[in-house]
Amino acid sequence: MVNAQLERAADEQAGSHGYIHRKDDYLKRLTRIEGQARGLQRMVDEEKYCIDILTQVSAMAKALESVALDLLEEHLAHCVVEAARAGGPEAEAKVKEASGAIARLVRS
Amino acid sequence: MVNAQLERAADEQAGSHGYIHRKDDYLKRLTRIEGQARGLQRMVDEEKYCIDILTQVSAMAKALESVALDLLEEHLAHCVVEAARAGGPEAEAKVKEASGAIARLVRS
Amino acid sequence: MVNAQLERAADEQAGSHGYIHRKDDYLKRLTRIEGQARGLQRMVDEEKYCIDILTQVSAMAKALESVALDLLEEHLAHCVVEAARAGGPEAEAKVKEASGAIARLVRS
Amino acid sequence: MVNAQLERAADEQAGSHGYIHRKDDYLKRLTRIEGQARGLQRMVDEEKYCIDILTQVSAMAKALESVALDLLEEHLAHCVVEAARAGGPEAEAKVKEASGAIARLVRS
Repeated sequence: MVNAQLERAADEQAGSHGYIHRKDDYLKRLTRIEGQARGLQRMVDEEKYCIDILTQVSAMAKALESVALDLLEEHLAHCVVEAARAGGPEAEAKVKEASGAIARLVRS
Repeated sequence: MVNAQLERAADEQAGSHGYIHRKDDYLKRLTRIEGQARGLQRMVDEEKYCIDILTQVSAMAKALESVALDLLEEHLAHCVVEAARAGGPEAEAKVKEASGAIARLVRS
Repeated sequence: MVNAQLERAADEQAGSHGYIHRKDDYLKRLTRIEGQARGLQRMVDEEKYCIDILTQVSAMAKALESVALDLLEEHLAHCVVEAARAGGPEAEAKVKEASGAIARLVRS
Repeated sequence: MVNAQLERAADEQAGSHGYIHRKDDYLKRLTRIEGQARGLQRMVDEEKYCIDILTQVSAMAKALESVALDLLEEHLAHCVVEAARAGGPEAEAKVKEASGAIARLVRS
């Protein structure tokens, strides 16, 4: 909690995005997702059973969705909250932008 | 824009939720969705073709999703932004809560 | 199992759709979904908290999705399998049509 | 059309899966998806704006979903239709299995 606040304060000073202090975690997860994409190519190449391929596709889609939901939560906690605190019309613009991203996620 | 700001100021005074000034719009849309649910019962009862029923289910799901996305946007624009402006740990709690709702939407 | 086969044989004779022998179950679920739509109107009308409304929307969306998945499974088990057994180009058309319905579900 | 039928006949003889004659297309698309996963790592590493990352995540999720829908359609057109034509309880098992895969896709 205190750590999170210190991190947040540091972020604000640096003008950086919310996800930055968990950059390594995101990179690790995206590397694993890249590996899943390669695994799928291998399965197609080795002519594995369609249903087994689809099961892997669903697992990969879930992993990607989970990255998106975490990024979004940090975006709301940092960029949107900061804009609201700064006052002015910026908060409204940030909310509109975040809502667009949420709609794209819900529909994908 | 000015209207939106006046409405927001009124909401804040009243301590009410963001969607309230569009209550009639939401009620109208939810009434239409209720009608779609009744229409589906009629289709099943009259033993319509499965694919036609599924097409109506998808239309209804889209209408419901659209209500959810609008409610969520207003929640972010009002409750979350207000909590951020008020300062304190409340904003963090609101973001966590909203993120939970987003995750449930993405997964449903 | 034997029951299912008898039902299927009866369906084929009657030229009816796969979901028919579970008509009452579908009607019950759709009536419950209609009730959820009415419950949402009540929540909006009583100005309940946005997040609680969104939780109910997600529950309703899940119930609707579950109806769709069951209808689809029965459609595949009956209409598509029957068309395949009958031979000819009909099976291909049925698969195309079912795939369109699946895509609409996945995207809604 | 004649080509598709020849291909299908060849598949059946070879006992292979429906997607095989479009193997190259699937491999190309999955390679592109792998590239998108690498692009996302680059964006995180270069600390790009969250919303831009989320836009790319949605594009990648859509590409993956589209691969899944195509694989599923070919699975229905080949494996499920073949099982139905062969007669016996196999078709029922194949439909159950495909329905499970569809449910996982809809929920992911």
